[in-house]
This record gives sequence, C-alpha cells and structure tokens, in this order.
Amino acid sequence: MTDFNKILDQVYKETLANADTGKVARYIPELAKISNDKFGLCLLDAKGSRVAYGDWEERFSIQSISKVFGLALAFKRIGNKLWSRVGVEPSGDPFNHLSLLELEQGIPRNPLINAGAIVVCDILVSEFKDAKKEVLQFVRSLTNDDSIDFNFSVAASEKATGFKNYAAAYLMKSNGNLNNPVETVLDLYFHLCALEMSCSQVATAFFPFMNHGRCTQNIQHLEVNKIKRINAIMLTCGFYDEAGEFAFEVGLPGKSGVGGGIVALLPQQFCIVSWSPGLNPKGNSTRGMYALERFTTLSELSIF
Amino acid sequence: MTDFNKILDQVYKETLANADTGKVARYIPELAKISNDKFGLCLLDAKGSRVAYGDWEERFSIQSISKVFGLALAFKRIGNKLWSRVGVEPSGDPFNHLSLLELEQGIPRNPLINAGAIVVCDILVSEFKDAKKEVLQFVRSLTNDDSIDFNFSVAASEKATGFKNYAAAYLMKSNGNLNNPVETVLDLYFHLCALEMSCSQVATAFFPFMNHGRCTQNIQHLEVNKIKRINAIMLTCGFYDEAGEFAFEVGLPGKSGVGGGIVALLPQQFCIVSWSPGLNPKGNSTRGMYALERFTTLSELSIF
Amino acid sequence: MTDFNKILDQVYKETLANADTGKVARYIPELAKISNDKFGLCLLDAKGSRVAYGDWEERFSIQSISKVFGLALAFKRIGNKLWSRVGVEPSGDPFNHLSLLELEQGIPRNPLINAGAIVVCDILVSEFKDAKKEVLQFVRSLTNDDSIDFNFSVAASEKATGFKNYAAAYLMKSNGNLNNPVETVLDLYFHLCALEMSCSQVATAFFPFMNHGRCTQNIQHLEVNKIKRINAIMLTCGFYDEAGEFAFEVGLPGKSGVGGGIVALLPQQFCIVSWSPGLNPKGNSTRGMYALERFTTLSELSIF
Amino acid sequence: MTDFNKILDQVYKETLANADTGKVARYIPELAKISNDKFGLCLLDAKGSRVAYGDWEERFSIQSISKVFGLALAFKRIGNKLWSRVGVEPSGDPFNHLSLLELEQGIPRNPLINAGAIVVCDILVSEFKDAKKEVLQFVRSLTNDDSIDFNFSVAASEKATGFKNYAAAYLMKSNGNLNNPVETVLDLYFHLCALEMSCSQVATAFFPFMNHGRCTQNIQHLEVNKIKRINAIMLTCGFYDEAGEFAFEVGLPGKSGVGGGIVALLPQQFCIVSWSPGLNPKGNSTRGMYALERFTTLSELSIF
Repeated sequence: MTDFNKILDQVYKETLANADTGKVARYIPELAKISNDKFGLCLLDAKGSRVAYGDWEERFSIQSISKVFGLALAFKRIGNKLWSRVGVEPSGDPFNHLSLLELEQGIPRNPLINAGAIVVCDILVSEFKDAKKEVLQFVRSLTNDDSIDFNFSVAASEKATGFKNYAAAYLMKSNGNLNNPVETVLDLYFHLCALEMSCSQVATAFFPFMNHGRCTQNIQHLEVNKIKRINAIMLTCGFYDEAGEFAFEVGLPGKSGVGGGIVALLPQQFCIVSWSPGLNPKGNSTRGMYALERFTTLSELSIF
Repeated sequence: MTDFNKILDQVYKETLANADTGKVARYIPELAKISNDKFGLCLLDAKGSRVAYGDWEERFSIQSISKVFGLALAFKRIGNKLWSRVGVEPSGDPFNHLSLLELEQGIPRNPLINAGAIVVCDILVSEFKDAKKEVLQFVRSLTNDDSIDFNFSVAASEKATGFKNYAAAYLMKSNGNLNNPVETVLDLYFHLCALEMSCSQVATAFFPFMNHGRCTQNIQHLEVNKIKRINAIMLTCGFYDEAGEFAFEVGLPGKSGVGGGIVALLPQQFCIVSWSPGLNPKGNSTRGMYALERFTTLSELSIF
Repeated sequence: MTDFNKILDQVYKETLANADTGKVARYIPELAKISNDKFGLCLLDAKGSRVAYGDWEERFSIQSISKVFGLALAFKRIGNKLWSRVGVEPSGDPFNHLSLLELEQGIPRNPLINAGAIVVCDILVSEFKDAKKEVLQFVRSLTNDDSIDFNFSVAASEKATGFKNYAAAYLMKSNGNLNNPVETVLDLYFHLCALEMSCSQVATAFFPFMNHGRCTQNIQHLEVNKIKRINAIMLTCGFYDEAGEFAFEVGLPGKSGVGGGIVALLPQQFCIVSWSPGLNPKGNSTRGMYALERFTTLSELSIF
Repeated sequence: MTDFNKILDQVYKETLANADTGKVARYIPELAKISNDKFGLCLLDAKGSRVAYGDWEERFSIQSISKVFGLALAFKRIGNKLWSRVGVEPSGDPFNHLSLLELEQGIPRNPLINAGAIVVCDILVSEFKDAKKEVLQFVRSLTNDDSIDFNFSVAASEKATGFKNYAAAYLMKSNGNLNNPVETVLDLYFHLCALEMSCSQVATAFFPFMNHGRCTQNIQHLEVNKIKRINAIMLTCGFYDEAGEFAFEVGLPGKSGVGGGIVALLPQQFCIVSWSPGLNPKGNSTRGMYALERFTTLSELSIF
C-alpha cells in the first residue's frame, strides 16, 4: 500500500527546495497580480482521503483546467455528435495555432486547446438557455460545493485583452463552425476560464474522472466510456505543446492552466492537484511539473 | 503610334467571343446579385483621350481596387513610416493567409492583401478625424467627380459576413499592430471596399499613377517616387495569388477586385480598366484577364 | 479474472464479420503483393499464456512497429542524450511532415515518425560497428528466437522508392542532425522497416514493455523508467496522425505499421498483436483498429 | 539623353563611401575565400556602349544568376510545357521553403528558386545528351565568348555541402516531378551555379533580355514574348524574399546570386551588373542593392 502522506511530504519539500518558481503569466492583467510564492498540493485518493500541503485551500484562477468541465458537460449532453465539430488529436504546434485551424477548415484539433474549447462553448450556448449558469451548476454538482464561482474581474480582464481568441472564433465562424455570435460564445468562454477553485476543490471535481464517473457523493455524472475518452484526451492534449513531455515524465492524464494549476489522476487510485503560479515557457507551472514528476517517480504509480 | 481604337475594338470582340464568363463572387450577398453578362472596357491615354466599350459607364463595386486609394492616401500622409506596419513583399500563399500573418507577428506582407489594407485603414483612422469622409474626398479629388460614393448596402453586407477579416484584424490586434478598435477599423475597411465607380471613373482615378502623380486636372496628388513605389507594389502584389501570372501574361502593374474590375497601367502611356463580374478560381475577372492579355499582346506594350 | 479466450473469440468473429478490409499499402511494391484477406490475432498475458486466432503464425513485414526496437536499443545505449536529437511530442500534422521538420531545425518531433526513426538509426550507426546486425541481435534476444530476420527484397524495394525518406534525411543533414552518410543511415532504416515477424513473435518481443523490462525469459532488457517512457511515447505518437484517436478509442500504448500490424499493451496485463494488411486512409490497419477497439470495450481493460 | 558615365561615377563613389560591405556567404566553402573588398560595376547600353568601374573584369561565381540561363534554355527548348512542371508565382516565404514545396505537391513556385531551378535542370537533362555542355555552349553563344567556364572546385564544394538541395530534389522526386536520378540532376545544377563570369560578361549575356531577344552579335536567341515573360519572372521572383523590396526600391527586373552579383535591366535601354561579395541577411549583395537603388534614383529610369 502506497504511503501517500510520506511521499507527498517529500515531494512538497523537494519542490520548494529545488524547483524554479517560473514566471507568472503577464498577458492576463488580473493574473499578473498573483505572487509566485504560492504553492499548494492536494491528493485525494479513491477512498476519499485527502493529503494536502501549503496553499491547498486558497482559490486560484483555474483557467484552462476548466476546459475539461466544458468538454464533459458538452459530451454528456450531445454525445458523439461533438466529434463532428472538434477532433481528438494533439495539435502539436507551438508556432502557429491559427495556421492549423485555417488549414483544417475551422475544425480545431481537440477540445483542450483554446479554439476547441470555444467550439465547446458554442455548443453549450446552443444547448442551454443560460449556459454560464449551467456550467457553474455542473461544477458545483461535481464538487457538491455551491461556493464555487467565477471571478468576474478576471473574466472582464480576459475579454478586454483576449484578441487571439477573438481571431480564432471569427476564423471558425468564417468556416461555419460557430453557430452563435462570437461575443456570446466568448463571454461564456472567458467566464469558464475565470472559475476560481482551490487545489482541494479541483481534486474533488476531478474525482469522477478517476472513479468511473462517480463523484465523492457517489452520483454518476458521466458514463464510464465517456470518462475514459476524456482521460485519453487529457493525456494526449492536456498540456499545450508539452503533452508528450508530461506523458513522458509524469505518465498520467491531466490538465494544466496558466493560472498555475495542474490536475492529474490515476484511474481508480487518486487525483492530485498542484498550484503554483510561476510558469515555464510553455505555459505550465514550473513547480507543478516538478512536483508531479517527483510524485510518480517516488510512488512508482503511473498509467505506463 | 499605337492605334488604341482598333486594338480595343478587336480585344472587346475577341473577349466576348472567346473568354469564359467565370463565376460571380457569392460570398458577399450583395455582389451575388450582379449579372455576369456585364462587360465594360475603358482606356485613357496620356493625353486624356478615352476609348471605351460595352458597360464602361455603369458603376460597379470596385472592391479591392480601392486598396490602392487607401494605400496612396496613407503613404501620402505618413510617408515611409508606413513600412514599419506593413511589408512590400508578395504573400504568395493561396492556402493559409492567416498562417503567414501569425508567423510574421501580425505584420502583413503587403498593403494590397486584406490584412495589409486593414492596417492601412487603422492608420487612416488614427490620422483623420473622419477617415471615411477623407477617403471619399481623396477619390473624388483624384477623379474631379463628386458623384462617387460608397454603396452602403454592400458595406453592410460585407460587415455581416466578413468573419475572416475580423479574424485577421483581431490577430493583428493581438500582435499590437492595430491601434484602434476592430469595429472602427473594419467599418472603414468595408466602406472602402464598397466604393462604386464605373470603368471610366476608375481610369481617371488611376491617371496619376501613370502620369507621375498628376491627375487629369494636372494637380500633383503624390510625389513621383511614391507613385513608382505604389506601381511596383501593384505589379508584385496586385492580383492575389495570381500576381506572378498577371506579370507573366500581361506585364503591367495593376489591381483587381472581386467585383470583377481590373485596372492596369503603363507609365506615361495609358490606364486601362475592364469590368466583368465573372471570376476565375483565384478571384480575378475571367474576361478581364483575357482582355488585358490580348491587349498587351496586340499592342506590344508592356513594362517588359 | 478476464476470460481472454472468450473475448478474443468474439473479437475475432466480429472483426471478420464487420470490419472493412481496407486497402493494402501500394507505395512499397513488395508490400502491395500481400492479400488483404490475411488476419491474425495474438494475445500474450503477463503469465506467458497465449490466445491466438487466424494467421497469427504467418510472418509479415512489421514496418514501423520496428521503430520501437530501434528506439529501445538507442535509449538503452545512450540514455537521455537521445533527447537532444529527437523530441517526445506528437507531430500532429497530416499535411506537411517536412514542414515541421524544417521549422524545427531538423529536430524531429518524436522517434516514432520516419524522421525520428532515421535519427535513431544515425545514432545506432555511430554507436555500433555493425548496426544492422546489432538491431537484429537485439530483436532476437527480446524474443529468444534466432529465426527472425530482415526481408531483403522488401528493404531493397523501399530503398528504391523511399524518396521522401531521403528528403527528410538530407533536410536533417543540412541542419546538422545526421552525422553519418545518408546512404548508410537509410540502409539501416530500410532494413529495420523490413523485419519480418508473426503476430506471436511481435507479442513476445513487446513482452518486456508490459513487464517492467523483463522478457519471457525473465532477462531485464531495459530499466523500468525507460520502459515507462517508451510506453508513453507509443501512446502519444504511435499511430501517425491517429494517435489521439487510438488513445481515445482503444486507450492503450501501441504501435502500428503499414504492413498492417498493430501491437498494443496494458502494463502488467497483456500484449496484443493484430495483423491485417488492409489500411485506412491514415495508414493504420482497418481490421486491427476495429479489433483492438472491440477488445478494450469488451474486456473493459485500458489505461484510462 | 541620360549621361550614364556621370551617373555611374557618382553611384560608384557613393557606394564605396556609404554602403555596408555585408558578409560573404560562408555556407559554400569555396565562396568564403573571396575578399569582400571587391566591387565592380558595368553598364551596357542598348547601342552596345559600356561604362565600367572597379573590379568589373574579374570573374566571380555567378551562382543563382545562372538560373536565368537555365530557364531561358529550357523555355526555348520546350516552350510552355515548362509551366506544367514549375509555376510563375513568387514564393514569398523566408521561413519554410520545403514546406511550400510539400504543400504544393512538388511543383516549385517559380524557376528562380532552388527547387524550380532543379526542375529546370531535370528538363535539360532529359532534353540534351550532354546537358552540362549544352548549358555552357548556350552561355558562350549569348556572350560570343568561349572563355566562359564552370569553376569545378566550386561545383564540387556545393555538391559536398548542398544537403538542402538534395532534400528538395528528393521531395520533388517523391512527388513525381523529377524524372532523372537526383545525382545527375544536381550535378548539372551545381555546375550551373558554378559558372564564373565578370560583370562585363554578365552584362553581355543579359543583353538579349533587354533587346527583344537579340544578343550583341544581333543573333535572335529567344522570341520576344519569351523574353518578356522571363523578365516578368525576374521582377517578381529574382531576389529571393526581397523581390518585392527590389521592385519597390529599384524598379527593374533582375537577378541576384550569393556570389555577390546582381544584374538588372531596363528593356530597350540598358543592362547593369554589379558585383560585391558581401551580402545582406536575405542573401543579396549589400553594395549591389545600394548601387542599383542609387542608379535608378539618379537616372530616373525604371519600369514604373
């Protein structure tokens, strides 16, 4: 039986001692205000036990981690029809994201890159009367925690500066892959990115993804075969241009966000969440990458 | 002495007899209404004499031809500072226009592709209190004709469907190469595209470009060295992905528009304008390309 | 306890009944001669038991499956120095393989695409006096089977027609990422592709990859952490432009070849190999993809 | 009447006084040995009079300038069939030359980029028993000068290091756009690049291109309509990624080479050739670009 307490203790100390703190994302003004000293770690095992360190209860902007929630809700709602609008292949291109989108007629590579998440938002806007409320409700139900909310000033900050997301949305609209007005779709997208949660809350929210679709309250939120597919997408596409590297070094499905959060999971075993706002040049938390690599090395637990 | 009457007569007849009528542009709803039977030809020589055939007096949507007016006005106004915002190289890429823009950090290849003309519009918006009025005034002064105007329903039609132009504008804004709000800049851009002029009016408006900057009223609108440079850009960049082909087959600087207009000129000799709305797959008027190739072959007049 | 006999029996029958036979690869003349009726399946479990169907004992050209052997031998030999010459990210690009190589200065995305395997071959040529012999010896030792050999006429056939591989090799050489002569490196590469093995032999050869590095003879061929990393690369990069799709539908690390073979594995549980020469448009065996998807669905065994 | 003596004298002095000497090309070892002090200028007017300065009689490696000779010979030989194998559009892409070739199925953009000239060489190899001899004979006949020859050590030097040209040739071969063996085609290509001529000899060789196809001996080498088309290609494609810039600043059709030579011409008026081995970052002679810009500014002679 793996002693998560002991391992996490070691990981926490090693990370503080060794890992570069990285650079806080500057392109979203609201995020640039966060101190890069912050560091939280939280593990939630299959039995519901938690091991946590540092700033694990402080809420942060989960940013792209929320793309998994959008994807899960859309997949739950419309099933495999989703895949006519967005692919499941890694994008693999650090240079020219819009290029690929242009070459591929406005069908984004996968739902975890920005363009893909924007298509997911378009679907949600079409499906629900109040998509923003619906998304929030979904995350609250996954966590059984109604205190979770958007940070509206972060959403406004992204809206005022997210020109590249507008470019992607309009490019998809010109290709007929966006049915609602760009402003409406991006309003949902920017709010989704602006969800605020703690390490502990994120771990709870991802519990169903490691537990055959059942949350900590034992409610079945998604079918097993959908959960498996979302995990597969997280593994191949969850870390921007570093998805291969994360699979290679850590060996777990997961998702990162430019707010500095990373969540990863081993089916039937655990979810683990780290938060530290300093990022490496590819946009993933420096300390988070270090901590998770150490964790799977020390625990010898990975999907490979 | 070249007998333009005789040659143009032959060109007009041959074109009607032989050239495919092409397909009218469908992506701008207002333009799709034009009959592709229309065909006008007008030559204006250096002495101010006109030879004209067919629908040469009917006004059409000059579309991208107007990019030359935007460029001329911006170049006149801010001089070589213009070239820090936009290049002078052919884009050469039928596949992925936004890709190149993305790779090149939001600096468009040249001012005669859409992205480049949008940057030119951004400059005009910054420079003038009422840029739309200023542009109109400039074209009216080139032609000494105050009846020239925008077609507002064409402008509105393009605004409602021009998503790819929005994508380009936002991509440039994300790269810091657009200083004004996207909506304001594109409003000017869509109006500029929606100028309506006849073959005869376009020929008059381009008279300064073949006459060292002086219009038919003998007013100097631009300096000689600016005129030469604009002509060079028309030659290398004036025909979308067919610029090389036009130089190769016709051998004159010129500019085409998806409304079916083409203008070309031989310095110190003539401007020639054709209009026929049917386009080839690269977006240039089928009959216009045919007519101009025949014209330079029969007249043996080209810059090469 | 999963009843592999029963499941494989069902998978075999369903596949024959339902799956399209695909198209045999035509671009390698020797491979074009194979009948697309062939279909073999072989599962080897962690205890060394085998369940097999159809043409499981017939040898076929394993083609790109052998890239894993090249990678394993080079990784074993030079360790992490390997990663300065080749990446671990999916290439994700069906359109322009050389483009990406050109943009990224001759460093291939990963060792399982052609360019990456060519770099691996360059390393093997540098490391071993007789690299071809060494590779063969390595595969024979993994399988404890000295009858495994190259098909020399397949190797010759690929050499005579593999112009795109020459292009990739020269492009890397122009970037300084190929130290030996192109001819020498490609000679090894084409032979490596031309290994002939049966489903059963491939399953045995991949046993160490699902068994912490130990082969069926209990010899440790590679360290656990190297095995895990190779499995990660197989998952993210093992199926050309369909890696995401395979992870999504099947959920196992694996590798395919244009000879129609596919190998996949679940750590500590089983290796499974299918062979059917008919390919889908992305170059993966149609029946193989179908069979493996059915297998993980029926067995409910995947890494996710 | 323009006083070429006076203008060229001023251009020569200004260039020596003001223009950066640039950097000698290092990637071809033989060329790296040339001193960047060299500077020659030679103008040949339509009447056959020459004005020359500096090192105008010293032979240098004309490199890509010779692509025009290859093109002229192939165009003369097979006429418009040439254009099914190579385009006439600018390539416009400093980043990824092979990418474009790959996207466009092995059809090079134009005959003045390397890939295009390699296709031209393939045609010449198919058409002539001894293509190398034929090319040499063609250049000797254009100049009426049998002393012109290849520099065999330059050809050997390029052959030993020209890996990217091998990559382009193999990529085209994989697309079916190269009929002869790569080695044979590139042997011609590298020799063509290795022609050695003085400014004066180059000016004589280009006399037909400004004189309706007739050389200084009044022999018609190519028809007028072919000459005009070659001039058009020189204008739109003759200066690597700086073709637009050269048209913009100088306004003449021309061709440059990495040996530091530049030739430009005004139909019916003059050819002008400069040689100075120091190059700008785009591969064009720094002093040559300066001198030609000054020349057309001072003489007020350009095609625009």
